[in-house]
Amino acid sequence: MNRGRLEIFSDAVFAVAVTLLALNLTVPGPGHGPLTGQLIHQWQAFTAYLISFYTIGVVWVNHHALLSSIVVVTRALLFVNLVLLLFVVLIPPVTKLLADYLPTGGFGSHLAAAIYGIGLEGRSVGFALLVEWTLREGRTQPSVPPDRRLAARLRYLVGPVAYLLAIGSAFIHPLLTLGLSGAVSVYYTFERTPTRIKGGRGRAIRGGSRTRHAAR
Amino acid sequence: MNRGRLEIFSDAVFAVAVTLLALNLTVPGPGHGPLTGQLIHQWQAFTAYLISFYTIGVVWVNHHALLSSIVVVTRALLFVNLVLLLFVVLIPPVTKLLADYLPTGGFGSHLAAAIYGIGLEGRSVGFALLVEWTLREGRTQPSVPPDRRLAARLRYLVGPVAYLLAIGSAFIHPLLTLGLSGAVSVYYTFERTPTRIKGGRGRAIRGGSRTRHAAR
Amino acid sequence: MNRGRLEIFSDAVFAVAVTLLALNLTVPGPGHGPLTGQLIHQWQAFTAYLISFYTIGVVWVNHHALLSSIVVVTRALLFVNLVLLLFVVLIPPVTKLLADYLPTGGFGSHLAAAIYGIGLEGRSVGFALLVEWTLREGRTQPSVPPDRRLAARLRYLVGPVAYLLAIGSAFIHPLLTLGLSGAVSVYYTFERTPTRIKGGRGRAIRGGSRTRHAAR
Amino acid sequence: MNRGRLEIFSDAVFAVAVTLLALNLTVPGPGHGPLTGQLIHQWQAFTAYLISFYTIGVVWVNHHALLSSIVVVTRALLFVNLVLLLFVVLIPPVTKLLADYLPTGGFGSHLAAAIYGIGLEGRSVGFALLVEWTLREGRTQPSVPPDRRLAARLRYLVGPVAYLLAIGSAFIHPLLTLGLSGAVSVYYTFERTPTRIKGGRGRAIRGGSRTRHAAR
Repeated sequence: MNRGRLEIFSDAVFAVAVTLLALNLTVPGPGHGPLTGQLIHQWQAFTAYLISFYTIGVVWVNHHALLSSIVVVTRALLFVNLVLLLFVVLIPPVTKLLADYLPTGGFGSHLAAAIYGIGLEGRSVGFALLVEWTLREGRTQPSVPPDRRLAARLRYLVGPVAYLLAIGSAFIHPLLTLGLSGAVSVYYTFERTPTRIKGGRGRAIRGGSRTRHAAR
Repeated sequence: MNRGRLEIFSDAVFAVAVTLLALNLTVPGPGHGPLTGQLIHQWQAFTAYLISFYTIGVVWVNHHALLSSIVVVTRALLFVNLVLLLFVVLIPPVTKLLADYLPTGGFGSHLAAAIYGIGLEGRSVGFALLVEWTLREGRTQPSVPPDRRLAARLRYLVGPVAYLLAIGSAFIHPLLTLGLSGAVSVYYTFERTPTRIKGGRGRAIRGGSRTRHAAR
Repeated sequence: MNRGRLEIFSDAVFAVAVTLLALNLTVPGPGHGPLTGQLIHQWQAFTAYLISFYTIGVVWVNHHALLSSIVVVTRALLFVNLVLLLFVVLIPPVTKLLADYLPTGGFGSHLAAAIYGIGLEGRSVGFALLVEWTLREGRTQPSVPPDRRLAARLRYLVGPVAYLLAIGSAFIHPLLTLGLSGAVSVYYTFERTPTRIKGGRGRAIRGGSRTRHAAR
Repeated sequence: MNRGRLEIFSDAVFAVAVTLLALNLTVPGPGHGPLTGQLIHQWQAFTAYLISFYTIGVVWVNHHALLSSIVVVTRALLFVNLVLLLFVVLIPPVTKLLADYLPTGGFGSHLAAAIYGIGLEGRSVGFALLVEWTLREGRTQPSVPPDRRLAARLRYLVGPVAYLLAIGSAFIHPLLTLGLSGAVSVYYTFERTPTRIKGGRGRAIRGGSRTRHAAR
């Protein structure tokens, strides 16, 4: 097994998920009142789509960074990655659910926001499992030194805890869930992978010689 | 011809199939009664989607492992692989069919479950053909020794036989088909490819030097 | 520019097209009469989908073989390839059109079959243009010798001419169009790329050392 | 990080976007009047899809050329690229919106054309940001010499300015927006990337030895 297919399969899943998200950006169309009204009616839905796109984008960037340091590909890793992807592909349908129910305002909108949060919670736990897998000696190059593991684990606990709050706050107001979810993505935008935490290497890696040694 | 495109094309098909699966996870939406009721009504559908996702995931992992040992790419291999993919892309529509008919409970639900089983049967036979192709001398590195071929063939007969049972049991209860299909995927979760059966090499392969020699 | 992205982009387009094809394999669903009747009603549609899948599969295999011999990637090649892909992505919608109109039997079914043929005609001309691009000295390794070029051109004229017949015969019976389209794909199943015509190299290329030199 | 995944993810997004475009090429189907009439009714929609396909194709070709010269992959680059992709995935839904409203002719068609223009404006600004990122010393190989940077910037201002005109002209006639959008794509069809402007290297790069040094 090599890392190439793991990356290609994951990238394709991320790419399809992100494109299908946008495909749901539809209005009822001609014969359902003025287009202006239809568009205004959906501003909450558009916000939901934007936050979901941003979330998938950030996950992709961090997935990219995390996997680029992995030097061993085991069957277990493939399955842990599948758990993450299971929840990534759920993002378009839960976003659509939220977008459909946000304008209705009733209990349905609270429940839809909670389900949206549950989808992101699963995604977040999936990523934390992937990070956990990389913490063992010899799985990444360079390995994460033992005294850095706790910091890495704590960092990846932020998402699961914050999404739990997002699920709970769905029953106060659905937009709170969206806001918290966006905040989590902002937090991980500036994320560094565990192997980079010990620093010194800088963020940029020259494409030239290094990629010849990288697994693809 | 090289193995790269065979893997990329297959990965993209697996990825799109798996994402489209989730896209069908929809409820009727606002104006069709309380969301809670709509969600409860679809628990069987959700189970079907979960089992189909798991099935495609396991096939992808095993496809990955099987192809990584192949050193010769022939036109025949590409077509055998297409037979497998033909049935992989059928998994989303047959899952949708089953999900639509499961709650109806009548003969339609039995028939839909049988068709779901037929789709997986085809997928399973497709994979067995792919394994059969690899058993010939010189096609994989290392080759499967002659005395191991029967064991490999028997192992890949389990799927086709179990899915036949799943098709038959669809006419007792549709959930039996689902349960048996899930059991098959559990069985192949712990699968090793023929070239690994003789063991000794371990499951993990270091990314560093080896992938330079692997076809991508 | 390198060949990698040309292949990845093309593969992804082929993969999405092939998966979307199957996604259209739906029946009206519960509440539209017995499922058995719905399924029988659509046997022509199922045949259309099968032939379209087979067609895209054969094009993918030949595209794979043709590109694997290319050693120069120019901007013009990328655009010629886009012409091919433009028609590949049209195959799912024209197949859906044909599948929708086949059971109606009237003039609509003849017209739909003709449009299906036009889509495949475009695809076929796109591939012929790609072959034409490769015939110039130094673009493939090995180059196609001048005395072989006429044979290659004739071989790739078979598709465009046969699809013209398929379009015409749509107005006799739509299934004639389908039958002819299937026959074209059978013909190209056994196709060899121009650079292979002069033979001697055999079909199988060892993955080991060669793929290191191939562009990906 | 290496360039490979950036390219694969982008390619997959482009590929899915381009295929989903075509998927929307549907007519109402049987029971909605003669097929001939349905098809004629949609010639404007078909034109919109063709122009959008061409636009995505040209962006893909230029993205390909631009990235092939990049030798440093930073986190910032990944996010700039995500901005571009955010608008690429919006092209199918805004094209569908335009296609739905073009035949209605009223204010809706003007507004839909303006939104179509806004989608392309975003896409164009995203690409200009990507070009801007590459202009810094040492990010591409060869680097863009300082005296060439202004020319590169001006060249990539043409798109954003032209799409602003396209948005404005939507309120005169929606087809003006489409025409201008098509013209922008024609302009960039003959585009050269900044690193090629200083010329001398020619457009064609041999696949053989060079791709070994390229990042994938």
